[in-house]
Amino acid sequence: MNNIYIVPDEWSIIENGFDKEKVSASESLFSIGNGYMGQRANFEETYTGESLQGSYIGGIYYPDKTRVGWWKNGYPEYFAKVLNAPNWIGIDVKINGQVLDINSCKVENFYRELNMKEGWLKRSFISEMPNGERISIESTRFLSFDIKEIGAIQYQVEALNFEGSIELIPYLDGGIVNEDANYDEFFWKILDIKDQKDEAYILSETLKTKFEVCTGMKSILYVNGEKQELTPQSQVFEKKIKHHYKIDVKQGEQLSLYKYAGYTQTMNHSAGELQQVMQEALQKAANYGFEKLLKLQIEYWEKIWETSDIKIAGDIKAQQAIRFNIFQLNQTYTGKDARLNIGPKGFTGEKYGGSTYWDTEAYCIPFYLSTKRKKVAKNLLIYRYNHLEKAIENAAKLGFKNGAALYPMVTMNGEECHNEWEITFEEIHRNGAIIYAIYNYVNYTGDYSYIPEYGLEVIIAVARFWTQRVNYSEAKKAYVMLGVTGPNEYENNVNNNWYTNYIAKWCLDYAAENIKKVKKEYPDDFQSIVKKVNWQDKELDKWVEIAQNMFFPQDKERPLFLQQCGFLDKEIKPVDQLPASERPINQNWSWDRILRSCYIKQADVLQGMYFFENHFDTDTIKNHFDYYEPLTVHESSLSPCVYSIVASKINNIDKAYELYLRTARLDLDDYNNEVDEGLHITSMAGTWLSVVQGFGGMRNFNNELSFKPIIPKEWTSYAFKVKYRGAILEIYKSHKEVKITNLSDKKITLFLNGEKINL
Amino acid sequence: MNNIYIVPDEWSIIENGFDKEKVSASESLFSIGNGYMGQRANFEETYTGESLQGSYIGGIYYPDKTRVGWWKNGYPEYFAKVLNAPNWIGIDVKINGQVLDINSCKVENFYRELNMKEGWLKRSFISEMPNGERISIESTRFLSFDIKEIGAIQYQVEALNFEGSIELIPYLDGGIVNEDANYDEFFWKILDIKDQKDEAYILSETLKTKFEVCTGMKSILYVNGEKQELTPQSQVFEKKIKHHYKIDVKQGEQLSLYKYAGYTQTMNHSAGELQQVMQEALQKAANYGFEKLLKLQIEYWEKIWETSDIKIAGDIKAQQAIRFNIFQLNQTYTGKDARLNIGPKGFTGEKYGGSTYWDTEAYCIPFYLSTKRKKVAKNLLIYRYNHLEKAIENAAKLGFKNGAALYPMVTMNGEECHNEWEITFEEIHRNGAIIYAIYNYVNYTGDYSYIPEYGLEVIIAVARFWTQRVNYSEAKKAYVMLGVTGPNEYENNVNNNWYTNYIAKWCLDYAAENIKKVKKEYPDDFQSIVKKVNWQDKELDKWVEIAQNMFFPQDKERPLFLQQCGFLDKEIKPVDQLPASERPINQNWSWDRILRSCYIKQADVLQGMYFFENHFDTDTIKNHFDYYEPLTVHESSLSPCVYSIVASKINNIDKAYELYLRTARLDLDDYNNEVDEGLHITSMAGTWLSVVQGFGGMRNFNNELSFKPIIPKEWTSYAFKVKYRGAILEIYKSHKEVKITNLSDKKITLFLNGEKINL
Repeated sequence: MNNIYIVPDEWSIIENGFDKEKVSASESLFSIGNGYMGQRANFEETYTGESLQGSYIGGIYYPDKTRVGWWKNGYPEYFAKVLNAPNWIGIDVKINGQVLDINSCKVENFYRELNMKEGWLKRSFISEMPNGERISIESTRFLSFDIKEIGAIQYQVEALNFEGSIELIPYLDGGIVNEDANYDEFFWKILDIKDQKDEAYILSETLKTKFEVCTGMKSILYVNGEKQELTPQSQVFEKKIKHHYKIDVKQGEQLSLYKYAGYTQTMNHSAGELQQVMQEALQKAANYGFEKLLKLQIEYWEKIWETSDIKIAGDIKAQQAIRFNIFQLNQTYTGKDARLNIGPKGFTGEKYGGSTYWDTEAYCIPFYLSTKRKKVAKNLLIYRYNHLEKAIENAAKLGFKNGAALYPMVTMNGEECHNEWEITFEEIHRNGAIIYAIYNYVNYTGDYSYIPEYGLEVIIAVARFWTQRVNYSEAKKAYVMLGVTGPNEYENNVNNNWYTNYIAKWCLDYAAENIKKVKKEYPDDFQSIVKKVNWQDKELDKWVEIAQNMFFPQDKERPLFLQQCGFLDKEIKPVDQLPASERPINQNWSWDRILRSCYIKQADVLQGMYFFENHFDTDTIKNHFDYYEPLTVHESSLSPCVYSIVASKINNIDKAYELYLRTARLDLDDYNNEVDEGLHITSMAGTWLSVVQGFGGMRNFNNELSFKPIIPKEWTSYAFKVKYRGAILEIYKSHKEVKITNLSDKKITLFLNGEKINL
Repeated sequence: MNNIYIVPDEWSIIENGFDKEKVSASESLFSIGNGYMGQRANFEETYTGESLQGSYIGGIYYPDKTRVGWWKNGYPEYFAKVLNAPNWIGIDVKINGQVLDINSCKVENFYRELNMKEGWLKRSFISEMPNGERISIESTRFLSFDIKEIGAIQYQVEALNFEGSIELIPYLDGGIVNEDANYDEFFWKILDIKDQKDEAYILSETLKTKFEVCTGMKSILYVNGEKQELTPQSQVFEKKIKHHYKIDVKQGEQLSLYKYAGYTQTMNHSAGELQQVMQEALQKAANYGFEKLLKLQIEYWEKIWETSDIKIAGDIKAQQAIRFNIFQLNQTYTGKDARLNIGPKGFTGEKYGGSTYWDTEAYCIPFYLSTKRKKVAKNLLIYRYNHLEKAIENAAKLGFKNGAALYPMVTMNGEECHNEWEITFEEIHRNGAIIYAIYNYVNYTGDYSYIPEYGLEVIIAVARFWTQRVNYSEAKKAYVMLGVTGPNEYENNVNNNWYTNYIAKWCLDYAAENIKKVKKEYPDDFQSIVKKVNWQDKELDKWVEIAQNMFFPQDKERPLFLQQCGFLDKEIKPVDQLPASERPINQNWSWDRILRSCYIKQADVLQGMYFFENHFDTDTIKNHFDYYEPLTVHESSLSPCVYSIVASKINNIDKAYELYLRTARLDLDDYNNEVDEGLHITSMAGTWLSVVQGFGGMRNFNNELSFKPIIPKEWTSYAFKVKYRGAILEIYKSHKEVKITNLSDKKITLFLNGEKINL
């Protein structure tokens, strides 16, 4: 745990005082987004200290080169990068001609707040210029959920002790380079820069992918509360445009600059209309004015919190953390656009390039299922349905036939865009998560129609993949799966990863079950699928045969399912015996040493026992938790949440709480010393799960909803809401009681601590 | 087998007729070198067709960037590239102002010969220019072994049917880019270009590595056999200098341009004297003149062939091939400079970047041991001795301690410079080959003093590596080696690769044996080593314990040593059942499919049985050959030679012959469809081995030399010579008889077909 400096608060992320060392970390923590775009909490004014300028637009990416030592057949042609987009927040400030830069000026009373209840970011401070002029600055910024193309900034400057000139220079900067560019390449082509009174536009195009983006701004200046009708002086550069407002002020006078700015782009509009649409959005925002826009923002967030808030009493840090997680998830994905997804870092950083990982299916879907309308989770499924053809092409590149699909490990548009063979070619369990999400969706919503309409095609294509990916081992007299990487990426190219074999078998069983059901209950849909995918009845027999004869590595004496063949040949030594100086091992050990060690990056066997908990008795789960957890280094952000849920399940509540804190405050307390690179967005859904499924004990197997709440001793009570089949349920748990309230008119049957109740 | 077009000839590589499609392949096949430098057989005159311009200087490299998707701890900082050096062979030709370019002109009577007996390259043809002028061209070129910095070209042009001007434009070109440059970067900085009458110089420096190179040329023109005293007109460009000789000719007149050119460089001279040394070398060459230089060249090769020729009667293609292999090896490495080594492509191409692989120890050393003075092989050992410190650093980067050494997989200067984790971190068997070479050298030469003087330090450092690299498996009650890549690189990150475990155990045994021997017989040396490497006697106990309890995967029923744990889980299907369209699999299958298949790239278990043949009875070897050979795709050039030797050993002479042809004519017949990239130099030593150790049955275990010659039915007889402990032996084998002749005065005892004889 490093750099703990965030002030505990129920509803806000607060930083008091200015520390240059923490600027990059705070830029991540105070990030804002509206599902359409997002940005790091960079300063509006010039800042020459360490910083990662970052502004991102959902779906806009660049296919970067991916050269490696030797090319291997089947490697993707590119590694997608979420593109750092033109910067529209910039407002340079000059006091008597001197640039304000708090890296070199004195700073007092620095305060920063990300108000999660209302969805805005504020920053205020007093600065003293080298010549002694003192000014106070207050800026408030948010990305509107009502006009999604727009962000709004209120930037206020007051002359505290001088008479002189203040210059405010809002600008747009298209000369942005990705920090993770392989060879410092520039990924944008500037097409045009337009200057129109108090508005300006940069039209630019991404290289290769040819997305066109119009970045626009409009600014309005108030002096001492009075609106000025000014046409700023403008300066146009090769990739940048600046508007200059220069005002002579007396001591105590105040300037307020309102800057409305944002993007339109060709995923939503034709290239020719980008500027006009941008202009209309800016005009609409200006007509509303900052206050009204902000009011709409607050109302929007009120509705979000109404159904998704989790209240934790008696532990303010836990309260702050869970809201931070829920807030960031809602900033990242709204579910309105089936072409978008949830990148591991959302709009808060560049690492992990492409946008979509199996994180979405394994972690995020349950969150959106329980807190949003059905359509949101469905859009995430449709995203994969729309990529089915590309997943089939991807599998074909690797030699699979007959419509087998391998979904990519990382993707922007359905194509694989990651280039480590041990991941791309081998971490194939992701294919299972895609199917598990379908199961989850149908089971939770009761909307079986998704299967005949969309799901079955995906289910068949994935089953075909597993069928070809296994081979029959004469030695084991069973089907084996050789050369895979499981969720625990600290093992590569292993044989018979238990989790992968298990989810593959389950996929085949689930496919067989649904083939039969659709054939019987939706014969028309079935006939059209038969035609579309060239279905052969004999495929079913093969699936059943493989599923029944799948090999699972185990030590029968213990008894224990083994993470993979040969696991027991390792030197088994619990993590707590490792010197602290060697942790995290991925920053201290060479790859070969990690690989041959027993250390587990993230839940692997336990991921399977979490997904398929209903297949195992509690003792079995406990035995596996007790064996594998001490060997787990949790160096993936996706690890502690799953272990926390399983720990709750086996009633190891202290461990569950320890792991909960680790997942909930992973970024706020910077456990892995890397928050400056961005937030771990997808694992935030895991945090939510570790409350709702972990402490709350919510389960939803076989069309039954159930709860078994327990509470950590550190809390006095907690409460959460879930949407379920038209109802809204509130679950309240204190040390004395548990209460479930149906806040809707829809009647629901559920199980509480094993007892059936009707609400 | 592709593009067979080389004319069978006992002593020459001959190409008749011009085919644009074959230019790049011929550039490789007709390559010339002199150990100090080498070059592809590029045309002197302009050629605008497909071509790989390549000229290389031993030891001059560039550390190219090695970015990969995610950085893994311990990755080397760079990937070394053998640098394409300034081009000094260029002679542009203009006929009445028109450039001669046989890509666009008519060509007749095209003939190219690489004379291996005498060491020169010749090319002649008649060309008709677009305006109808017909000229004949003849060029002869060689790289001198007497003045190693120098190559000589005789370039003759005759006007066949016209009167007009002929311009000959010898030039130097420093603007050379490596074909395998990661991002088309230029690796050289031009420091100076100097023009001095009929001489010119380009001084350039490699970026980062800062080698300085002076490329120089001197040219002399003869018209109809008469030397011209001309100062050419000169043209200096940014990276190039040209000398223009323009002569008016009548029909039948002939121009001969003699161009002497080459490199001096800062591995051998100070930067300040490069040009002067170059000038002296050019002057010396010019004083000798072309004829005398050529005569010296022929004499040099005569001596080489005297001791290293292999004569094969009755099979001209086999004869040509074996000489081609021997010739190229002698062009690549002369053993004069312990800083140089034998790159897999020698001076004939860029692939495989760095210069030194385990190929040197496993394949090349026996060739040089038997055909050169002792010093040559010793220099190859000293090369590794000099790199010991860097090998210890390399191991330390991966977490090994206490002076453990891991020699690099690929290196130019002792540092690892390859960047695939499965190779760099895991293909650790290379460490064993370093020790095996020491054993080989001492055993062959009888020069035990090498061990106390140099070898033991290396032996100890490598033994320390193995000691730390194994771990004790409670499950197997034995020491296991997890996460390795064996010689068969079509398996990565496997557990207990039999070959690696075997050579590791052998290294430990050999280390223990030598520790004891040196301690007893060379106590002073031992004491100084003890001090230098901080030797502890208890280390010996650990070595012995590990060696005695090393795990070897096997199927006891068959019985069979398994290539690695889990090998029998694969689908086992002989290579000959694969469709031809899928071969070679490395060009047609994805990497994951290759990995999980049973197909073997090159000898792995069999490599061990080859190295340690004396540890196994012939039946055991035969069983393993019969099991593994049908699963082997031989997609490494290093594969067929070993299998051929083992096939001879088990008396499967038809198979041995088939594999011999494959190794011997790998490049000449372009088996792997890639000869345009360069020749497989190191595997050529394997070809030699497959005659001498294969058919000739030469063995040298336990200080005993033995032969067991057999002969393929396709040959009438064969004969080879080997140097052995001061003697030169000639072995002659026909279908009727076998004859061993000692050509020296040194008495030798050896075994022929198991019978002891004194010669």
